[in-house]
Amino acid sequence: MDFEWINVQAEELNKALKAHNLFFPELSPVQYQAEIPADLASVVDHTLLRPEATYERIKEELKLARGYNFASVCIHPRYVSLAAEILDSTEVKVCTVIGFPLGANTTLVKVNEVRDALAAGAEELDMVLPLGALKSGDYYSVYEDIVSVKAAAGDRTVKVILETPLLTDAEIVKASLLAKAAKADFVKTATGFAGGGATLEAVKIMRQAVGLSCGVKASGGIRGPQAVIAFLQAGANRIGTSAGVAIANMSAGEQQ
Amino acid sequence: MDFEWINVQAEELNKALKAHNLFFPELSPVQYQAEIPADLASVVDHTLLRPEATYERIKEELKLARGYNFASVCIHPRYVSLAAEILDSTEVKVCTVIGFPLGANTTLVKVNEVRDALAAGAEELDMVLPLGALKSGDYYSVYEDIVSVKAAAGDRTVKVILETPLLTDAEIVKASLLAKAAKADFVKTATGFAGGGATLEAVKIMRQAVGLSCGVKASGGIRGPQAVIAFLQAGANRIGTSAGVAIANMSAGEQQ
Repeated sequence: MDFEWINVQAEELNKALKAHNLFFPELSPVQYQAEIPADLASVVDHTLLRPEATYERIKEELKLARGYNFASVCIHPRYVSLAAEILDSTEVKVCTVIGFPLGANTTLVKVNEVRDALAAGAEELDMVLPLGALKSGDYYSVYEDIVSVKAAAGDRTVKVILETPLLTDAEIVKASLLAKAAKADFVKTATGFAGGGATLEAVKIMRQAVGLSCGVKASGGIRGPQAVIAFLQAGANRIGTSAGVAIANMSAGEQQ
Repeated sequence: MDFEWINVQAEELNKALKAHNLFFPELSPVQYQAEIPADLASVVDHTLLRPEATYERIKEELKLARGYNFASVCIHPRYVSLAAEILDSTEVKVCTVIGFPLGANTTLVKVNEVRDALAAGAEELDMVLPLGALKSGDYYSVYEDIVSVKAAAGDRTVKVILETPLLTDAEIVKASLLAKAAKADFVKTATGFAGGGATLEAVKIMRQAVGLSCGVKASGGIRGPQAVIAFLQAGANRIGTSAGVAIANMSAGEQQ
């Protein structure tokens, strides 16, 4: 990757945001040391976001998740209180989604959704940025959207879904820089609902753009332990997948 | 269609909802007289919901819509105030989407989204019902979700998207009956985001289930005037399509 090109994107942001007191300093190439945990579950957000999933299916998956060392289980807002109840007394966090999967509702509605989710017991929040604003070069609205969600989230983890399958590489860089400037805890690749998923190339670009002080979550189409390891090596430190249980079992099997 | 079978679904709802003071009386077959307007635009919700659409593209489409007799233009919540401004002094209504496209956020968040949209100038609201609740037989939560949105909407039009591509015929009937009981103004087929669209068969079932006092909107994959007419004949009285301008032009051409 031509690192200078990432700085060109930062310069473009500086030009576009001159009126807004936002400044993106020059970046240096990141030497990322991937950590591959023995138990891959520990970096997995085990995800169940099919809208037609029944209560029974969701309960079953949540109960199953109690037996694993997942970073979190990610479910829709309607199931946060159920998840908080079932995962109570475990280390597995409750993750939910905000403005999902299109990101095109208003910032106020996203903020309300965060408050509602926190009250119900959510501990991590995966929001979708306003794609139309990003595509229109309205970078300050993207930044404001993330800042507002982060403010509502307090000390809870906020991950910003860029929806990389719909973005150019330049937009991936710009969105990553905006998310980092807004103090997001992670940038995240994809919702899985836009007809594409994570790519190693997108993750590499995101890691170079955000550096070492912001997380990178790869999600969308990641199905097995080898893919998990490949994405960790590319620069991710969190993996979203609906195959979390299978991955955890295979990962544990390999240790024996 | 075996009409008796629709009544079986109503009886099943009665059994499931016995504790909730909701009662579905026996239905009679509907003889629906389709009205095919000379200007097809008048039954079209011209729709632009691609999340990556730029401001410029949305403005362009809204300005174009001013020249047609559309029932509404349907855009994401972030663009409601823009649409209200551009469509001011026209008869074309501003339609937006609530809990879109998965319907899996909480009822409270949907209600907040309605209030925010109305304040920005929305006149019609297309909501997605909670699919997981429907699939789980939690019919009262589906009803409550719709009733709450309708209450927040006041006298504004509420359309309930069933997401028919993900439903069985029995679920289509039950969802239609629940929406009608909740005083929805329309039942609507699909979001267009679930990998399928409207079918004539789904529209026929919906019309038989809701009778004549509730609207039926067909949406998802409808692309030309012949398809519009076929869906109107099947029982729809509103059509959602992103091809509204082309359809309106062809419809006008045919009149000459």
